[in-house]
Amino acid sequence: MDLEDKLLMMPGPVPVAPRILRAMSKPMINHRSMEFSKIYDDCRKSLKKIFNTNNDIFVISGSGTAAMEAAIGCTLGKNDSIVAVENGKFGERFKIIASRYGKVIPAEFEWGESIDLDLVEDKLSEGAKAIAMVHNETSTGILNPAEDIGKLAKKYDALFIMDGVTSIGGDEVMVDKWGVDIAVVGSQKCIGAPPGLSMISVSEKAFDLMEGVDSVPYYSDLKAYKKSADKELTQTPYTPAIPLFYGLQESLNIIMEEGMDARINRHRTFAMAVRKAMESMDIEMFPSLNEYSGYSNTVSAMKAPESINGNDLKREMLERGIIIAGGQAHLSGKIFRIGNMGNINANSLLTTLQSLETVLHKHGHITDFGAGIEAASDVLDKVL
Amino acid sequence: MDLEDKLLMMPGPVPVAPRILRAMSKPMINHRSMEFSKIYDDCRKSLKKIFNTNNDIFVISGSGTAAMEAAIGCTLGKNDSIVAVENGKFGERFKIIASRYGKVIPAEFEWGESIDLDLVEDKLSEGAKAIAMVHNETSTGILNPAEDIGKLAKKYDALFIMDGVTSIGGDEVMVDKWGVDIAVVGSQKCIGAPPGLSMISVSEKAFDLMEGVDSVPYYSDLKAYKKSADKELTQTPYTPAIPLFYGLQESLNIIMEEGMDARINRHRTFAMAVRKAMESMDIEMFPSLNEYSGYSNTVSAMKAPESINGNDLKREMLERGIIIAGGQAHLSGKIFRIGNMGNINANSLLTTLQSLETVLHKHGHITDFGAGIEAASDVLDKVL
Amino acid sequence: MDLEDKLLMMPGPVPVAPRILRAMSKPMINHRSMEFSKIYDDCRKSLKKIFNTNNDIFVISGSGTAAMEAAIGCTLGKNDSIVAVENGKFGERFKIIASRYGKVIPAEFEWGESIDLDLVEDKLSEGAKAIAMVHNETSTGILNPAEDIGKLAKKYDALFIMDGVTSIGGDEVMVDKWGVDIAVVGSQKCIGAPPGLSMISVSEKAFDLMEGVDSVPYYSDLKAYKKSADKELTQTPYTPAIPLFYGLQESLNIIMEEGMDARINRHRTFAMAVRKAMESMDIEMFPSLNEYSGYSNTVSAMKAPESINGNDLKREMLERGIIIAGGQAHLSGKIFRIGNMGNINANSLLTTLQSLETVLHKHGHITDFGAGIEAASDVLDKVL
Amino acid sequence: MDLEDKLLMMPGPVPVAPRILRAMSKPMINHRSMEFSKIYDDCRKSLKKIFNTNNDIFVISGSGTAAMEAAIGCTLGKNDSIVAVENGKFGERFKIIASRYGKVIPAEFEWGESIDLDLVEDKLSEGAKAIAMVHNETSTGILNPAEDIGKLAKKYDALFIMDGVTSIGGDEVMVDKWGVDIAVVGSQKCIGAPPGLSMISVSEKAFDLMEGVDSVPYYSDLKAYKKSADKELTQTPYTPAIPLFYGLQESLNIIMEEGMDARINRHRTFAMAVRKAMESMDIEMFPSLNEYSGYSNTVSAMKAPESINGNDLKREMLERGIIIAGGQAHLSGKIFRIGNMGNINANSLLTTLQSLETVLHKHGHITDFGAGIEAASDVLDKVL
Repeated sequence: MDLEDKLLMMPGPVPVAPRILRAMSKPMINHRSMEFSKIYDDCRKSLKKIFNTNNDIFVISGSGTAAMEAAIGCTLGKNDSIVAVENGKFGERFKIIASRYGKVIPAEFEWGESIDLDLVEDKLSEGAKAIAMVHNETSTGILNPAEDIGKLAKKYDALFIMDGVTSIGGDEVMVDKWGVDIAVVGSQKCIGAPPGLSMISVSEKAFDLMEGVDSVPYYSDLKAYKKSADKELTQTPYTPAIPLFYGLQESLNIIMEEGMDARINRHRTFAMAVRKAMESMDIEMFPSLNEYSGYSNTVSAMKAPESINGNDLKREMLERGIIIAGGQAHLSGKIFRIGNMGNINANSLLTTLQSLETVLHKHGHITDFGAGIEAASDVLDKVL
Repeated sequence: MDLEDKLLMMPGPVPVAPRILRAMSKPMINHRSMEFSKIYDDCRKSLKKIFNTNNDIFVISGSGTAAMEAAIGCTLGKNDSIVAVENGKFGERFKIIASRYGKVIPAEFEWGESIDLDLVEDKLSEGAKAIAMVHNETSTGILNPAEDIGKLAKKYDALFIMDGVTSIGGDEVMVDKWGVDIAVVGSQKCIGAPPGLSMISVSEKAFDLMEGVDSVPYYSDLKAYKKSADKELTQTPYTPAIPLFYGLQESLNIIMEEGMDARINRHRTFAMAVRKAMESMDIEMFPSLNEYSGYSNTVSAMKAPESINGNDLKREMLERGIIIAGGQAHLSGKIFRIGNMGNINANSLLTTLQSLETVLHKHGHITDFGAGIEAASDVLDKVL
Repeated sequence: MDLEDKLLMMPGPVPVAPRILRAMSKPMINHRSMEFSKIYDDCRKSLKKIFNTNNDIFVISGSGTAAMEAAIGCTLGKNDSIVAVENGKFGERFKIIASRYGKVIPAEFEWGESIDLDLVEDKLSEGAKAIAMVHNETSTGILNPAEDIGKLAKKYDALFIMDGVTSIGGDEVMVDKWGVDIAVVGSQKCIGAPPGLSMISVSEKAFDLMEGVDSVPYYSDLKAYKKSADKELTQTPYTPAIPLFYGLQESLNIIMEEGMDARINRHRTFAMAVRKAMESMDIEMFPSLNEYSGYSNTVSAMKAPESINGNDLKREMLERGIIIAGGQAHLSGKIFRIGNMGNINANSLLTTLQSLETVLHKHGHITDFGAGIEAASDVLDKVL
Repeated sequence: MDLEDKLLMMPGPVPVAPRILRAMSKPMINHRSMEFSKIYDDCRKSLKKIFNTNNDIFVISGSGTAAMEAAIGCTLGKNDSIVAVENGKFGERFKIIASRYGKVIPAEFEWGESIDLDLVEDKLSEGAKAIAMVHNETSTGILNPAEDIGKLAKKYDALFIMDGVTSIGGDEVMVDKWGVDIAVVGSQKCIGAPPGLSMISVSEKAFDLMEGVDSVPYYSDLKAYKKSADKELTQTPYTPAIPLFYGLQESLNIIMEEGMDARINRHRTFAMAVRKAMESMDIEMFPSLNEYSGYSNTVSAMKAPESINGNDLKREMLERGIIIAGGQAHLSGKIFRIGNMGNINANSLLTTLQSLETVLHKHGHITDFGAGIEAASDVLDKVL
């Protein structure tokens, strides 16, 4: 029997609250109507609060990657250069996208390593038009120093393009304060909505620097998004994915009801609970931190223990109805990742940790039941 | 009270059947799982039947425009040229997209005019790598001669890129027989699903000609779609809009249940009913046909009568709960358009015509009730 | 292909607005919780406005018949007598139910005939404890004189039990002003919700007269409903049909948004439009009115024309996607009925009339198209 | 933020699988149509398999109590006597209902005690027309000896009326083999559907013995159900709760997919896991068993420990998002109950036990974490 009750604890897509699913099942409307305009306006207003910005915000019908391409493709001309910071898979993606539009100055670190700000500054001093960085590197569970990079970008007068795909909506992101010119988030992560939409904030400076850029992609042309959004009835340039807008609106309502402070606190507490549980079960965190970085508060990456390969662990968790993630690319089998993004409750997290205890116990990594749960419960009881 | 019961009779988005809405409200799944893979496989299999092709078919999370850009952007290098046939707004869009990637050889006609094949052949003979044409020009209600263009493309060894956004799924499209190398359709038109997805078929020849093309867009890179689709578990390169895939699968189920022959017949009959009703009410069709063109079978464009401007007519229909379309760009106010795409029944069409009768009667364009309905009923009774 | 788009124009179940369907798909809750209590309270509050009463109101998980039995079974002891007014099928039902609990004094009229108040008064003067009457007789399309019966009941100090199953929520019902001691309505009629619930208002006098009644049914024991409703957390005595309560709450929200005055006006206008269309198409109304009765404003019953039997007419309408009703019991084939209850719009009504025109035209009853629609449109344009 | 994610682990209503919720949101249909008839037929066919009977089965739009009344009210005349076995709240309910229709011969035991078969036989030998017993006494977590009672009923030629409200669909029930003349189940328990429907099987003997019974309730008159079900289009006598029938059909589909053997095994294993966890945490089961009774396999009743009152325990579980039940009537505060009915998975059960561990730990009843989970996991791993 298919009960559709698997627990999604991977770093996106996340479980979608029933009220969001119901919102998505509304009948279609004309996308050039007052009704749609109100929905889009409402979403943009809430998003500004979540991004902490007064910049323009647009919603693209496409995944976070479409928005990453919009950020790069609209600002980077053939002869422009960009510092692409890479310490994980999504940093690498920025680099690859950038290489299709302009000149890349790579600032590369081992996946899982922290960013060396001095090295980044050296690269910036070469005279780049922009710098692109992933705030919360989903592939390695590290939180990169966005505020520091913002300061460097300012110092060198470079546009700061930030992938906040798995931080915005779950962890603190201060777009205006940090000087992020273009910030990007996906719908299916901390926002708690289904996948298919991406949201992007764009500063005036970024719009100014789009002038004269050749080879701008058509579908993700931010100037077209601005032009349509500025019409009397706020619109998107191309037909939007209406049901996903319904879902986004409802998920933003949920965020407004919870309040961003409470939401950030919840994400941080849950991630702390995961880390404490891991510590109590003798499982090592994967990222190497330095003074500027932190563990991600939305996805935790752990080294697979000797007794069980990361992919086997993922598979055995799946057999118990819980979907966690393994490692990507060369990290496959070496790490496993547990997400705590979006609208999940403490019981979902505890169930996950409990299943993990059972699997680790079965493979002889731990001998007693209960230590992980107790450690996590101690942390969670603060927010329950 | 909001009863969510407005009748969408514009050329997309179309009314979405309740069972499709229910399918969309399923819980999220892992997009790298067997479950998702099966859904994607199932969709691709049905789409091949609807496109009448053995070519590869991919689903992009983005509107039809994203797929148009994929078609152009992946095949057209900076120094490649393409014949862009334009006799309406979407032909114009092809031209604009193409101008961002390569060299455009325009084959332009007045919007609403038929295509002159000799002129197109002249352009092709200049040595273009490709030719792009809109099959069913939504903005003007004309059906362009796809098979003839296919023959010309073959003769001049050019790639044939066809926008079938508002024909595929509703009217006959023979991708392989007509020699269409890349064909594109949107989810929210004749397919009957919500907006947000586009489907694209790609021939081997098209893939061959992608080699060496520079500046390929990242999000809509068809080679990435092929690589992911060819994996052991069929995938998309980036996180897909899962609920829309649920909806697409269900809408394709509906199409398979109806059968494409019956579906095409239904669309053709409905469009004929609209035309007969217009004739009986002394309303002129907008497009000028030649021997190669036809009236669209999925959207009818009519000249607004003297007594009422097209936009006023649209507004008064809206007041009666029925959403039709006006004219786009310079055609605004001059024409009005009625769609009959997707999963609508005869009663929806009759209600639309009846409301139109009432509006036209109110403005003195007609003096008696019933002629339009009677004319339409005569045609519809064949398929009821 | 099953598009689930048949139009329900019978006198219940009625089409249910999508937002009500979505409300019904909420997850289950504890029926002894604050959440449920709030929903029930909210429904009861709105229902009091619709019933125009300060009496207690309860919701029974069961059809209108369950509530009819509650009204009779709780008040009528073995040796008590009740005047049962019958001029249609539901009047007959009251009589049959009453005969299971006490003594029936029948006040019978031909189905479709109007009630003779003098005859009713004669029966009442025999000394009955109660009188039961159907306000809007669904089987014959007649509106019985509730206010007059209320006066007679008062004069003879009898309890007035009224079946408002197809009037309350669509037509004017003044429970307190008219002196209705027990009034009953079903969820699937003018209230616009799905079937499965019935709502019942009970006066203090009715509760007083329940004392000492033997053989009270257990499931529909109104004293149990009162006891549970009076608890700190408002409850039902037995587990309620939770999803239907969700649906009822949302349908009552819709009614409050529309406003009862507007809603009554809409129902009356729609019924008038049906009657005018019938007149113009030479179709006779079924009921025989007297000075005290009226045509129903929620369901119209018409005599089948010579050229087509009522059941055939119903079947041919069904083939056109529209569900109307035939006649019940001995009226089968002789009449047909069109409902205009709940949340329907003018287009649904016009589509129905238009299909009827087509069927009547096909059978030679009318020769021209349009007269019915024109007559109905004239009436409807007032409320559009 | 309301995430609608509380976990219902009380003995009904149970969590309803999303696919059942979706089924419930289908548009309305005519309840006198082929479509409805097919749904009802389909449900009746599956129900016969679950009941293990060839008897007629009907679906009543009303809770289990409505069906209990149907069973008693249709068979018990004013002068007929019935042995009402009571060892819990629902046994008491049978007694109360019976006292409204005929003469009760009570066979009473302390709530939570086992039934003494000799005493029951004594009562039967007084010459009762029927005997009524609750199979699985929800209020005390005891499984009464249905097969033995069936044998006694046969010996004394009495009708055997059995409340299987919380056993049928979750535990083994052999209606025909055990000689159960009338068996009753509710939709919101082991069947896994929403509340609002009850299902009842009726033997030919039961129908025979209905002849001549006076004062039969109207709404739950089983002869009316039979008459309607035997029509050409299978129907219900009164308008059925259509959305609940949609939900029932889908929940029965789920049962057929799982298979009754697997389903029973799952319920038994889950209940065993609860009992083992309780044992390991030093919590005593409430019921006193004898050689004929067993612990319920669908709901476990435990004595509240000294350190915390049953109602406080329930409240603290609710604060953790988990809804369990306390004791009813005089058992309030003294016991707590955990249901494992319907479509729940092992993770839901483990989460419940884990939260219970945390609450008991907080109140000092246990000192270490993990024992309950380990004990339960050992049992559950058999069926995972």
